[in-house]
Amino acid sequence: MRSVSVIGAGLSKFGERWETSFRELIYEASLNAMEDARIEGKDIQALYGGSMAPGRLIGQEHIGALIADQLGLNPIPSVRVEAACASGGVALRQAYHAIASDAYDIVAVGGVEKMTEVSTEEVATALGGAGDQEWELFLGATFPAIYALMARRHMLEYGTTEEQMALCSVKNHANAVHNPYAQYRKAISVEQVMESGYIAEPLKLLDCSPITDGAAALILCASDMAKKYSDTPIHIAASAQASDTLALDDRRTLSALEATRYAAKEAFKQAKMTPKDIPLAEVHDCFSIAEIMAIEDLGFFKKGKGGKAVQDGETQLNSRLSINTSGGLKACGHPVGATGIKQAVEITWQLRQQAGKRQVANAEVGLAHNVGGSGATAVVHIFKRGD
Amino acid sequence: MRSVSVIGAGLSKFGERWETSFRELIYEASLNAMEDARIEGKDIQALYGGSMAPGRLIGQEHIGALIADQLGLNPIPSVRVEAACASGGVALRQAYHAIASDAYDIVAVGGVEKMTEVSTEEVATALGGAGDQEWELFLGATFPAIYALMARRHMLEYGTTEEQMALCSVKNHANAVHNPYAQYRKAISVEQVMESGYIAEPLKLLDCSPITDGAAALILCASDMAKKYSDTPIHIAASAQASDTLALDDRRTLSALEATRYAAKEAFKQAKMTPKDIPLAEVHDCFSIAEIMAIEDLGFFKKGKGGKAVQDGETQLNSRLSINTSGGLKACGHPVGATGIKQAVEITWQLRQQAGKRQVANAEVGLAHNVGGSGATAVVHIFKRGD
Repeated sequence: MRSVSVIGAGLSKFGERWETSFRELIYEASLNAMEDARIEGKDIQALYGGSMAPGRLIGQEHIGALIADQLGLNPIPSVRVEAACASGGVALRQAYHAIASDAYDIVAVGGVEKMTEVSTEEVATALGGAGDQEWELFLGATFPAIYALMARRHMLEYGTTEEQMALCSVKNHANAVHNPYAQYRKAISVEQVMESGYIAEPLKLLDCSPITDGAAALILCASDMAKKYSDTPIHIAASAQASDTLALDDRRTLSALEATRYAAKEAFKQAKMTPKDIPLAEVHDCFSIAEIMAIEDLGFFKKGKGGKAVQDGETQLNSRLSINTSGGLKACGHPVGATGIKQAVEITWQLRQQAGKRQVANAEVGLAHNVGGSGATAVVHIFKRGD
Repeated sequence: MRSVSVIGAGLSKFGERWETSFRELIYEASLNAMEDARIEGKDIQALYGGSMAPGRLIGQEHIGALIADQLGLNPIPSVRVEAACASGGVALRQAYHAIASDAYDIVAVGGVEKMTEVSTEEVATALGGAGDQEWELFLGATFPAIYALMARRHMLEYGTTEEQMALCSVKNHANAVHNPYAQYRKAISVEQVMESGYIAEPLKLLDCSPITDGAAALILCASDMAKKYSDTPIHIAASAQASDTLALDDRRTLSALEATRYAAKEAFKQAKMTPKDIPLAEVHDCFSIAEIMAIEDLGFFKKGKGGKAVQDGETQLNSRLSINTSGGLKACGHPVGATGIKQAVEITWQLRQQAGKRQVANAEVGLAHNVGGSGATAVVHIFKRGD
C-alpha cells in the first residue's frame, strides 16, 4: 500500500451563503486548495466529492461530473460519495485508496452542501434520510429527537449534565472566534446555551449544529512525490471506517457509537498509536452530546467521563487535548457533505502551524472523526506531520 | 497495483417489484452473489453500493450503512457511490481500487434502485438531476428530450434512421427472451417500435428504457486468492472512467459521447487490447440512439456506421459482436443505480459459459460500458476469463 500525503487544503467561507451557488462553493474551496498546493488543474488526475442530499436540497445529482465540469477538469474521472454527514470522510477514504492502489499520483477530494435553498422543514426531512426512513423518520423522529434519546440515556447512565453539554458549545464558539471561515465567530456563555429553547429535550437550540452552506477541499499526493509540492506535507497515517445499524432501536447501546469505537481501534492500529499520542482532534459534534460521546468512544476519556472532562477544561484549546479547534460543527458550521473534509483541512493547518490564534502548540499528530446519521457510519483519519 | 477478479455474481429479478422494498432488492441480489461465490458474510471485508436517487425516490440516503445493516455485516465499512445512471460502474471502480490498494482481499459491490414508489413524473424529475438542473431540467429538458437532440444530430450527420434505432430495441428484446431476470421477456418487431408513440421525436416509447426496480451484486477478490473461491474467476483487465460537461450545450459534439471515447481508450490501454479483441459487450442503451453511439464511440464501428452495423445484424447474438446479450437497459430493465453492476454480472456469466440460450460461443473477453446522464460520466470495464 503506497503512502499518501496531503499537499493542499482549502475551504469556502461557511455560513448562510444566499448569493453563492453549490457550484460556486465548490469552486471557492477547490481553488483555495489548488493554490495552497501550488498545482494547476492539469496536475490533478481524479476527483472525489462528498455530498449528502443535493437531490433534495438543490434538485441536482451526478455531483462528481458537476465538480469536474465546474473546475474545467474534464475528462478526468470524478466520483461522488454519499454517507450522510460522513460523506466527506468517506470520500477522503476513496481518494486515499485510489492513490494507495497506484491508480493515481495526485487527486483532489472535496465536500460540499448547499442547505439554504429550501425551507428548514425540507432540510430536516432531507437530513432525516440519514437515519432509517421506514423506522424512524416516517414515525416522526428527526435528528434532534434521535440525539436527544442518546443524551437522555447518557445522563441516566453516567450522570452527564445539561451544563456539561452546554460547555462543549461554549468551547467550540470560543475557538471559532479565531477561525475566519467559521459561520459563528461569536463567543457564547453557558447561561446563553441553558436559556436557549428546547429543540428536543434535553437538547436546546445552542446544543445543535446549524444549517450551513459550505465546501472544503484537499489535494492528496503519493508521499514519495509530496515534497515536490509542499514544504510540509501531512502524512495520512490511518484511514478507517465502520458501520452500525441505521436505526437507533437496533443498537446494543444508546450511550455510545460502536462504529466510532471500531473505526478508532482500526485507525490506531494502522497508525501504530494509542489515544494518548493525540494532542488534537476534530470530532463530530452535530449535537453537544455527540462530542461527549465521541471523546469517550475514541478512547480519549473513559466511558462516562466525557462530560466531566469537558467541565474540567480538558478539551479546551491547548489543554490536555484540543478538541474542535475549528469551532466544530456547532460554531464553524455543518454543511453536511463538507464537514469530513473541513475537519481534515483544520488538522492540516494545525500540523503546519498555520492556525493563527487557535494554534495548538507543537502539534505533530491530529485526528479527524466524522459520523454519518446517528452513528451508522463513522470514519477516523489520523494525520502526521512529515512525509 | 494488485490484480482483482470477480468470484461471485447475482441479480434480483428486474421489473415492477411492487411488493419488494429497496432493502429486499439488495438482499436478494447480494445473497445470490454470495451463494455463487460460496462465501459467508464474515468473509466480506467492505461493501460498495451504487444508487442514484434514493433520497427522492424512497426518502432514504445513507445507503452504504443501510446495505451493511440489511446484510447483517456491521461493523465493516460500506460506501455509497452516486454517478447518476453510472453509479454502478463507478461503485465497481471504487471496490476495485480498494482491493488493488491492498486495503482488502474480498469486497462486495452492488447497485440498486427502487423506482416504482413515486409517480412517473417524480421519477422523470429525479432522473433529470443526472443532467444540469440549472441549464437543462429547470428549462424543461428531461432525458428523452436530451437524447432526442442527440438522435436528431446523428441522423443529420450520418443518415442514421429511425428504423436502425428501432432494430436495437428489437435485438435487445430478442435477447431478453432468454434472460430469466429480465423485465420484458417478450420479442417485439420493428413495426411495433415504429408504431409506438413519440416520447420526444424521433424517440418513441419502444426506443426508451423502462422504469425498473432491481439490484445487482458482485463479489470481488484479490486475483491471487480467487481460485480458492471460484473454479472460473473472471479477471478485471481494465477499469476506466471519464467525465464530460454536465449540460449538452457545452459539448463539442452532440453525436458522440466523448467521455465514452476517453474511458474506452484508457481501458484498452490498461488491458493491452483493441476493440477487435472484444466479442461481447454490454453497452448503455438508455435510449436506442445511445446504443448506436456507444458501439461507435467504443471503437467497434467507425463513427456514423453504427446504425448500418445494427441494420446488417452485426451486433446480434453470436454475430460479429454480441451487444447487450442480457437484453440491455431496454429489455432487461434499467434500475439506474444497478445497471452498471448488472452489466458486469452478465459479462461474468457469459465468460463462465453460464448464459444458457443467450450464450456467446467461446467468449473469453467481454466489455461493460456504463453511462451517467447524457454522457457526463462514462465507465468502461474489460473482463477476461482466467485469474
